[in-house]
Amino acid sequence: MNAVIRILGVDPGSAATGWGVVESSGARLSYVASGVIRPKRGSAPAQKLSVIFEGLRELIAEFAPDEAAVEETFVNANPRDALVLGQARGVALLAPGLAGLSVAEYAANSVKKSVVGKGHADKHQVAAMVKVLLPKCGTLASDEADALAVAICHAHHAGIRRLEAS
Amino acid sequence: MNAVIRILGVDPGSAATGWGVVESSGARLSYVASGVIRPKRGSAPAQKLSVIFEGLRELIAEFAPDEAAVEETFVNANPRDALVLGQARGVALLAPGLAGLSVAEYAANSVKKSVVGKGHADKHQVAAMVKVLLPKCGTLASDEADALAVAICHAHHAGIRRLEAS
Repeated sequence: MNAVIRILGVDPGSAATGWGVVESSGARLSYVASGVIRPKRGSAPAQKLSVIFEGLRELIAEFAPDEAAVEETFVNANPRDALVLGQARGVALLAPGLAGLSVAEYAANSVKKSVVGKGHADKHQVAAMVKVLLPKCGTLASDEADALAVAICHAHHAGIRRLEAS
Repeated sequence: MNAVIRILGVDPGSAATGWGVVESSGARLSYVASGVIRPKRGSAPAQKLSVIFEGLRELIAEFAPDEAAVEETFVNANPRDALVLGQARGVALLAPGLAGLSVAEYAANSVKKSVVGKGHADKHQVAAMVKVLLPKCGTLASDEADALAVAICHAHHAGIRRLEAS
């Protein structure tokens, strides 16, 4: 019998931070919950980051994930955009870290490869495949699908690590 | 009589986050404390960010600043470096924000202009001027001097805002 691992996936962004919780048991995956944290437009950066942090803290308290995984999405960003994205990402790494969860990081290409089978899949292909893998997920916002995709990617990687360790 | 405002300045970085607390009363400035938070080298990003966050939280509890100011230092960074710096910066904005402090942000050039009088001063000139303005500061690490410089910059700007408002 395989242990059930509950994984929180996060796709951080200053305007919208997607999150998704899945359960993984051996090769089986199931949808638990997902959503998007949207700080108020035009509020100060520290305020936006507080909203993301408090949102993630509440999710962690409510869904009690065992592990967390955060997407690394920047690639062609200019330094200023990367800095602003990094600020949201820092908070997305911090919240589960403070809660004592291990926090894995996956590059966007690894996530796509793990979910769709190729590293250069587009957003629609990722979202479509998330729906195939998690049929109970319903209609998803784009950031929500990305967050579930990183959780699925982590489930695959964690499953491989457990197989290798056994 | 001028009110005394206590300001926390932060120069965030993944390897070293400088901090400095000054008091400002009208045109008078005085040194309170400063230091550098250095997460253990090679620890995971979430772990490093937790050390920065907890360090700043403890400082805020100990020194009870009224306002905070964070430096924006990136300029020529590539996107990956900017992302990593952004992560530390997100935590540096979050900690005082969660504590209910207003958090001002200043570009490196504004800090240099405010402290040295020119936007393209080098690190040594900034550190030397910080020592002139805060004679009790003792020997400073570079990140510590930068953090005190951003606190001084905020004191100047806040002083001007209060004069304009009075």
